[in-house]
Amino acid sequence: MSRPVAPVPASAIERFDGEADVLVVGLGCAGAAAALDAAAAGAEVLVLERASGPGGSSALSGGELYLGGGTPVQQACGFEDDADNMFAYLRAALGPHADEEKLRLYCDGSVDHFGWFRSLGVEFQESLFDAPTWMPPTRDGLMWLGENAWPYDQLARPVPRGHRPTAEGFAGWLIMDKLVAALHEAGVPVQTDTLASALVVEDGRVVGVTARGYGADVAYRARRGVVLTTGGFVDDEEMLAAHAPVLLGHGKVSDGLDDGSGIRMAAALGATTRRMGSVEIALTALPAAMVRGMLVNALGQRFINEDVYPGLFSSAAVKHQPGPWWVIVDEAGWESIPERDLWGVRPTHAAETLAELESELRIPDGALQATVEVYNRHAARGDDPLFHKHARWLRPLEPPFAALDPRLGFAIGRGSAGEGTGAAGFTLGGLHTTVDGGVLDVSGREIPGLFAAGRASAGIHGEGYISGTSLGDGTFFGRRAGRAAAR
Amino acid sequence: MSRPVAPVPASAIERFDGEADVLVVGLGCAGAAAALDAAAAGAEVLVLERASGPGGSSALSGGELYLGGGTPVQQACGFEDDADNMFAYLRAALGPHADEEKLRLYCDGSVDHFGWFRSLGVEFQESLFDAPTWMPPTRDGLMWLGENAWPYDQLARPVPRGHRPTAEGFAGWLIMDKLVAALHEAGVPVQTDTLASALVVEDGRVVGVTARGYGADVAYRARRGVVLTTGGFVDDEEMLAAHAPVLLGHGKVSDGLDDGSGIRMAAALGATTRRMGSVEIALTALPAAMVRGMLVNALGQRFINEDVYPGLFSSAAVKHQPGPWWVIVDEAGWESIPERDLWGVRPTHAAETLAELESELRIPDGALQATVEVYNRHAARGDDPLFHKHARWLRPLEPPFAALDPRLGFAIGRGSAGEGTGAAGFTLGGLHTTVDGGVLDVSGREIPGLFAAGRASAGIHGEGYISGTSLGDGTFFGRRAGRAAAR
Repeated sequence: MSRPVAPVPASAIERFDGEADVLVVGLGCAGAAAALDAAAAGAEVLVLERASGPGGSSALSGGELYLGGGTPVQQACGFEDDADNMFAYLRAALGPHADEEKLRLYCDGSVDHFGWFRSLGVEFQESLFDAPTWMPPTRDGLMWLGENAWPYDQLARPVPRGHRPTAEGFAGWLIMDKLVAALHEAGVPVQTDTLASALVVEDGRVVGVTARGYGADVAYRARRGVVLTTGGFVDDEEMLAAHAPVLLGHGKVSDGLDDGSGIRMAAALGATTRRMGSVEIALTALPAAMVRGMLVNALGQRFINEDVYPGLFSSAAVKHQPGPWWVIVDEAGWESIPERDLWGVRPTHAAETLAELESELRIPDGALQATVEVYNRHAARGDDPLFHKHARWLRPLEPPFAALDPRLGFAIGRGSAGEGTGAAGFTLGGLHTTVDGGVLDVSGREIPGLFAAGRASAGIHGEGYISGTSLGDGTFFGRRAGRAAAR
Repeated sequence: MSRPVAPVPASAIERFDGEADVLVVGLGCAGAAAALDAAAAGAEVLVLERASGPGGSSALSGGELYLGGGTPVQQACGFEDDADNMFAYLRAALGPHADEEKLRLYCDGSVDHFGWFRSLGVEFQESLFDAPTWMPPTRDGLMWLGENAWPYDQLARPVPRGHRPTAEGFAGWLIMDKLVAALHEAGVPVQTDTLASALVVEDGRVVGVTARGYGADVAYRARRGVVLTTGGFVDDEEMLAAHAPVLLGHGKVSDGLDDGSGIRMAAALGATTRRMGSVEIALTALPAAMVRGMLVNALGQRFINEDVYPGLFSSAAVKHQPGPWWVIVDEAGWESIPERDLWGVRPTHAAETLAELESELRIPDGALQATVEVYNRHAARGDDPLFHKHARWLRPLEPPFAALDPRLGFAIGRGSAGEGTGAAGFTLGGLHTTVDGGVLDVSGREIPGLFAAGRASAGIHGEGYISGTSLGDGTFFGRRAGRAAAR
């Protein structure tokens, strides 16, 4: 059974163990950004974190930041971008039903936000990795995240916007290191091992939180506002079952503490939520193999252009297509992948003919052959009339053939590295907030004194997701929430 | 902006305009069932209804009741059923993630529940309509609702459970007539033109509602409990955008008043919701044409066995496949449909060859031909290895060919008759309740004095839907909620 989260009247608190202008609950990227900007606005800030150290799920993430509109890195790599162009892409890629008001602000403020990261000491190498991938096998600071794939290349001028701090592999920790260093420099205290349990309310206004710290019940008072940056709810099985059952049974991209506690604390006060069913889900497939071949469902049917952002083919497969799914490649395609040995992924099946491969993969007789026949006929002309994969990746597939299991790849979530379902994800829905983080109640009114940002809130996303938009909107709207709470 | 729904403290109510043991808010099928069983349990009951008369969306529905386990109608038609068999089908068909606890009770109590309808004077003709359809063009009282289609025929012994009151066409009004007549007979007063606006609370217990009636603000006291049977939220665009955006822009299967008011009133008090993104969505296609041909997506790919429950092919298309979708038939198939002239649906395209038809339908060159080639090769052997359509409907398609637009058909929702998207639906998510209708808060505790049933609550459904389960679970759990509130 879930922990009780009913709001506590201030009159029931005998004494507060601490007090600040702004209380920030949860120290991932959104909490750090909120605390920094609240402090910069002159507020006395106190951060509460349930774990023994800062970082949350942000620190375990890949570290991509979705930024554009003409950042110095984009410019150095020779790309012209603007806020409208960025908006046009994200509206489509995060949709359907992206939050256009938040998205507009996010795009308009993106170059400034990039500058903020640089000012904190986050560095970006000014070079592009130019092929579809989950993560470049290089230190390149810029990468494509689906902008140059159909139909997005028709909706906006394709420019890459995946910004990566200079690091090998996962880089979320590096961003959190810089954020936490800035907090220390700003003199913002962080109370770790302190699990917020309920909101404290006085005359309809949120004025603090109760918490469990070092085995004792404690309470903290907020003179101006409480900012909930407690993360999503992928780690709470009850909430998943109620709101996002599509993730049940899959791996979890989180630090294990994304249990939706902040969402529940606010909902107990009548806060409303938004898009609780929206999720990101990722297959750990090798995009480099996929673009050179084809991705098919259990019936041998293609269903998407293989050069899209990898999260998109993952969602298309897991949410919409019968599995198991297969990546079909030919020998020449496989051999042409520069990084083919990097991830330790190998074909699981090989065959001289498609009929043999069909039989091995238990695809109905003739179904894969029909798919490849149509694909090859058009690919010979550099065309993909079904899904419009870019001509760069199109040529007829020829024997011998091989198949890869797209569920096998490098680990991007707990339990995702080739075990279980081979898919892992996290939740995108949460508290319904204004663009300044004000939490709305079910009557559509802001709850006085209560703010939220990051995955505890519903951000810029509709039903779609692009890497870098979590750290991106978490920090961007975290800063706005911090400033609003400080007022 | 939404109407405010914040709970009102009882101390703020100067005087109550009425009082009863049990207040039922909303007079559709769930409200009528709750009121009848509360009254039968000895409670004094008052029903509030916002419209000028009873009925709600229930009265406008088709009138199917999903019942089984061995009803007299099933027995008279020669079918043996039992509760376990019914449970096995519904768990799969209403899933994934159906509410198994509620479903178990629903199946175990189904024969009794059938008897309750008969005791109210609802009559069922003891004959079967034996082909896939949205609604039999006959007065047959029993129909298949997907039980005999793959994979369900493998998971449970196929028996039909769609029960229809004896009537031509839509029969929801007939069921509501009988329920309302029983209410009158039981002496339960109904206050129409009374729109509940907020819950009245005293010491954490729901003790009444405020409402708007005849231009005046009124309040009613409930000595034992309030039962919310206010319907779903398909008519509230803000709630749809927040929770079930897949329905935005589509037609609405409702009476126009399903604005989620009861869900919001309870959520303002910290009630939790469940599966707010689950929806039923229906294309008005002609199932009789579809089973004799094939349903393909915009790329000429099949994606489901065409003999499933029509709501299932609709959901598969709208939620998961690129449109426009097409029903491909051949002349012999079309001519063999007994009721082909009944619904006024005609093929929109015809061609001597599949290549011509592809071109007319803007399907990529060769894609439909490949689909039909694979289909025909297997159909000649009475086999459908891709989707397992029943052999009864399998034979190779031969020229000349025709295509029907599955968005054109008879109207099943406002705005659905060939206008707009040709799809219409309603919401399945709502308040999270116990099996006795007790509304749970976000801490998992029952809110004293508050109950809910029907589409204001999350019922037996997971992400799937079957006709007859709304009137079915609305009345079944409405009765349980009424009895619990009367205690």
